[in-house]
Amino acid sequence: MKDRKLLMIPGPIEFTPEVLRAMGMPTTSHVAPNFIEVFGQALERLRQVFLSSSGQPFIVAGSGTLAMDIAAANLVEPGDKALVVDTGYFSERFTAILERYGATVTPVRAPVVGDAPSLEDVEAELKKDGYKLMTVTHVDTSTAVRADVKALTALGRKYGALVVVDGVCAVAGEEMRQDEWGIDLALTASQKAIGTPPGLALVVAGPRAMEAFRKRKTPVGNYYADWTNWLPIMEAYEARRPSYFGTPAVNLIWALNVSLGQILEEGMEARFARHRKLNEAFKAAIRALGLKQVPVSSDREATTLTAPYYPDGVDSTVLKRINEAGVILAGGLHPAIKDRYFRVGHMGAVSASDILTTVGAIEKGLAQAGYKFEPGAGLAAAQAILTG
Amino acid sequence: MKDRKLLMIPGPIEFTPEVLRAMGMPTTSHVAPNFIEVFGQALERLRQVFLSSSGQPFIVAGSGTLAMDIAAANLVEPGDKALVVDTGYFSERFTAILERYGATVTPVRAPVVGDAPSLEDVEAELKKDGYKLMTVTHVDTSTAVRADVKALTALGRKYGALVVVDGVCAVAGEEMRQDEWGIDLALTASQKAIGTPPGLALVVAGPRAMEAFRKRKTPVGNYYADWTNWLPIMEAYEARRPSYFGTPAVNLIWALNVSLGQILEEGMEARFARHRKLNEAFKAAIRALGLKQVPVSSDREATTLTAPYYPDGVDSTVLKRINEAGVILAGGLHPAIKDRYFRVGHMGAVSASDILTTVGAIEKGLAQAGYKFEPGAGLAAAQAILTG
Repeated sequence: MKDRKLLMIPGPIEFTPEVLRAMGMPTTSHVAPNFIEVFGQALERLRQVFLSSSGQPFIVAGSGTLAMDIAAANLVEPGDKALVVDTGYFSERFTAILERYGATVTPVRAPVVGDAPSLEDVEAELKKDGYKLMTVTHVDTSTAVRADVKALTALGRKYGALVVVDGVCAVAGEEMRQDEWGIDLALTASQKAIGTPPGLALVVAGPRAMEAFRKRKTPVGNYYADWTNWLPIMEAYEARRPSYFGTPAVNLIWALNVSLGQILEEGMEARFARHRKLNEAFKAAIRALGLKQVPVSSDREATTLTAPYYPDGVDSTVLKRINEAGVILAGGLHPAIKDRYFRVGHMGAVSASDILTTVGAIEKGLAQAGYKFEPGAGLAAAQAILTG
Repeated sequence: MKDRKLLMIPGPIEFTPEVLRAMGMPTTSHVAPNFIEVFGQALERLRQVFLSSSGQPFIVAGSGTLAMDIAAANLVEPGDKALVVDTGYFSERFTAILERYGATVTPVRAPVVGDAPSLEDVEAELKKDGYKLMTVTHVDTSTAVRADVKALTALGRKYGALVVVDGVCAVAGEEMRQDEWGIDLALTASQKAIGTPPGLALVVAGPRAMEAFRKRKTPVGNYYADWTNWLPIMEAYEARRPSYFGTPAVNLIWALNVSLGQILEEGMEARFARHRKLNEAFKAAIRALGLKQVPVSSDREATTLTAPYYPDGVDSTVLKRINEAGVILAGGLHPAIKDRYFRVGHMGAVSASDILTTVGAIEKGLAQAGYKFEPGAGLAAAQAILTG
């Protein structure tokens, strides 16, 4: 009996054996030539994964919230106006972070939880005021709502705002083309679709973002996040020169470089396509089982993540049954509906078998919880797409 | 032929096989019961390693500089006066960080590089002004100078200052007794004597520090470092309850808990004694080889680290020869003398064989560089103490 459970939460996700092996390698010096080469490669590969040929990558020890903090602290000066496209819990966190560094923030909210604000509402607000910066949460990890990053970025740029995309639950899973779409800064965390254990904040800042940073009149409010400290370090590692500000998280960066290599070997287009197909299969299973989702319509649904409501008569104790059936899922996170839904992450190294295993465990849990459905209906719906 | 080199720099250090195995384990959920237990244990053990029964531990993804940032951002409000006991590069970094959050900083400097300011000079300055906070760098990683933390803390407390100890190159190697000595906040980074790969900032804040935080009139300037976000999380994990603010660095925390367990199994007193003995052996070897050190006198010398000057006629290229002989050492870091000395870390899991291997490689490198000495003199001096 294997007792290890499949981890299908929105991060940390399942990592490849090669990535885990890199994590457990004897640590070398942060200025050893072989590590400098690895860090340099990771920076170059990060740019490729973000589809940003012109961006400046930053790899810093910390969580995804640090990546948000890095974006806000370096781009915002007291008194700046910021617009937050608010799709849930993590958009609201961005509001709090931007305000911490002195921004005046206007959130444009969705009419209901599970929806996103319309392009018209966002444009109306952009027209009203001179916004220096606009943030978009690509996939809100709390609701599985996906924002239309391409259209929103075009809008933000039209009105001269720097566009910051929180891609924590998205980058390397959802389609995102930083250069082509004109995104000024995109960020993520290592433990999501980018496939490395938690502990790294990842940021790629485009030329307009770096220019806004260079033109600052006030010091960056946050010392650890300050690009003044990190930019020379990132430039040095990419030029394969030793350098020091804070000790980099050697093992995590080694693992990140392995994962980025695997991502680029698959190819970004193939990776986007695989995520789309596996997502379609999982969503079909959820619908076949009669479960509703938090996103109000299919064009609001994320590709990396699904947030189904519990069906009538079933509550969060079903997650324990699903866990006993071998799959770890996540509970709700959005305060307004926390106890009414659960979350399933399907990103990164996720495979067709993972999808079937997960649907199988959900069916088992629901059946044990007394929910009435045709056993196998979810699996059949998923399989129809997986074999299509 | 084993081609792996021994890593004897002041962090990252050599980690035990058990710690590295924990790093490479399949990652679980940050709210899985087995991880909650591990995180809770790590918090409890951190308190024991800091010899602080009353302190509040914080474990946050980031580098040692983040730990300094956490201390400064949470304790300092704009206009506060801070005294920095300045023993080198990292004391100066603390000055920069404190200033970033609005403190007016007075550094009390050593007369020369390699010395520490006298207790009299520090007391004279404490008398002059009402200092809210005083920082001491236990071991300055740039110079291997150790400050007299016990006496300095007593002084700071006498004049009502909160005493913050930067123990990055010290905690779990140098003797430090947080409660007994009255230290209000001590901090370190995972990759030093605490024996875990880089990527975790570790802080233990005593009751007076927590009270100063609770009485703040202004918000903490740094969002990611803000205890308002982290305190409920640390309390929850220690109470073995699931909680979420930012995703913890699961693998690193698992590895940290293994290392803390090994440290406590050795026992703090035995650990201090082992560090003292291995340090004496290494210092004896360095003296026997005729090398001078950056610290101006033996009572300024760290236990965890040695900073020898290159002898006449030898320059930093000798480090490459020592590396070829199998041991990785670090170059100089203090700007004033950067090219004139090197650094050897001997802390954490370091053993007598590591000391002999290192002395052997240094002898080999020096001989190849044309330096005249009696081969084996360093080894004999070390061995006399190791077998004593």
